[in-house]
Amino acid sequence: MRPEPFFSGPGFDRADPLRARPQAIAGLARQPDAKELVWRDGLPAIGADGRLEWLAVEAPDLFLGLSGGGPRFSAIPASAEGSRAAFGAMGNLLPEDAPVFAAALSLGGWHGRHGFCASCGSATHVVRGGWSRSCPSCAAEHYPRVDPVVIMLAEHEGSLLLGRQPHYPPRRYSALAGFVEVGETIEAAVARELHEEAGITVSDVSYVASQPWPFPSSLMIGCTARASGRDLTVDTAELDDARWFTREEVAHSLREPDSGPFQPPPPFAIARTLLDYWLAA
Amino acid sequence: MRPEPFFSGPGFDRADPLRARPQAIAGLARQPDAKELVWRDGLPAIGADGRLEWLAVEAPDLFLGLSGGGPRFSAIPASAEGSRAAFGAMGNLLPEDAPVFAAALSLGGWHGRHGFCASCGSATHVVRGGWSRSCPSCAAEHYPRVDPVVIMLAEHEGSLLLGRQPHYPPRRYSALAGFVEVGETIEAAVARELHEEAGITVSDVSYVASQPWPFPSSLMIGCTARASGRDLTVDTAELDDARWFTREEVAHSLREPDSGPFQPPPPFAIARTLLDYWLAA
Repeated sequence: MRPEPFFSGPGFDRADPLRARPQAIAGLARQPDAKELVWRDGLPAIGADGRLEWLAVEAPDLFLGLSGGGPRFSAIPASAEGSRAAFGAMGNLLPEDAPVFAAALSLGGWHGRHGFCASCGSATHVVRGGWSRSCPSCAAEHYPRVDPVVIMLAEHEGSLLLGRQPHYPPRRYSALAGFVEVGETIEAAVARELHEEAGITVSDVSYVASQPWPFPSSLMIGCTARASGRDLTVDTAELDDARWFTREEVAHSLREPDSGPFQPPPPFAIARTLLDYWLAA
Repeated sequence: MRPEPFFSGPGFDRADPLRARPQAIAGLARQPDAKELVWRDGLPAIGADGRLEWLAVEAPDLFLGLSGGGPRFSAIPASAEGSRAAFGAMGNLLPEDAPVFAAALSLGGWHGRHGFCASCGSATHVVRGGWSRSCPSCAAEHYPRVDPVVIMLAEHEGSLLLGRQPHYPPRRYSALAGFVEVGETIEAAVARELHEEAGITVSDVSYVASQPWPFPSSLMIGCTARASGRDLTVDTAELDDARWFTREEVAHSLREPDSGPFQPPPPFAIARTLLDYWLAA
């Protein structure tokens, strides 16, 4: 059974072919069933019912797609840096709205950080229903970034390697992770990151599941790998600590997050999905 | 057995921690065994022996890493748009040098297209040994792009769906592909692209292998998927044609590229790796 991380799933119909037809998009925005996403405190707004909030269309900068209820738009938000309160509300978000939340947040934030042409420095403008920006000066077209990140559980004889980043809450341990670089495969990035951050050598890298992570726009690629030994050299510039945990310690921590050996990552993180998957295997 | 596409493999030691130490990098560039990559016709130069060409260090803009033979650098190339002749030479490139070729080409080309800050429009400068650019005006830091692309074989009862892009050489058919968008998983991108380009519905998306593709800087994520039926609606804006091929037709084409039912993708493309893998399964 394939694990299904939070933020995954099809979302609604992105209707990509419409993006090349600005008049068709403008027509959709005038339909009575068209809606525009509400933003609050730097994130798409989540109502008390766990659903995204929508209102009448005012600034249809970004054409998100077609839902069963009609065309869906978003303005380019003034800020896509979620406040602590806004992050708190994310715990209520229903899984069926999570892919649209992720797409809108990554897309809206990208526009805010990419108003100028990286190739010539001129101001760019929105095209393709908000899925691209075009430079009037040098004609370069710029597309939203999706940054692939590997996140992985290294295993050695039934134990798992987990680490603590400096910004984690107390007692939190989670999977190690890092950006895939140019010229690398997924498998090479997993091996490099585990060697850099923990000093271990791995083989048998296996893909498990993926997740869009909209803070700001990563594609998390979840893997497992087999370590050749347990000796660790922790990169203290990146991690506060890294340790091996037995299967029982992992199971205990997921069962009792507050009193187990460590506090596991939250349910919406793919690291949690990987731990659940590993325990069930 | 995991398939190993061309351009995959570890390359040499990227020595990432050194990137934060400009004086250490400058010292490496002065070592007698330091070398700088030769560029020719818009690509890293490939010698008659199939190896990358290196000369004495003159413009160590980019610190590529440490090889067994010493530190390796590259200038930022005037052009990273390979000529047809340069692409022809790529057929000679030995697999052990292919990951460095890919990293240098993507990194060098990225600098050429990203001299300005996307956030404020100011000119940026090279930092971190060439693995980042920094904006003196707004302090934004920009990292090289890696664009995840799904490339997939859809199967229906023993036959494979392959398509022709308009720029392909005559008789070429290959795997369908497309960029992963913000807010999508790998699996959702595979399903969306196959539906958009060929009108089919798929399930059981499985990851097979990945490949860095340095034209200009994609991460190819190779998958298989199971189609629910054979009726096709081909998106003629993207594809000249898409067709189902039987296992025997695929085997014949790989055995006899010039006289089989279609000309398969070249050996250095992950699409070819996927076809070999599917036939061997």
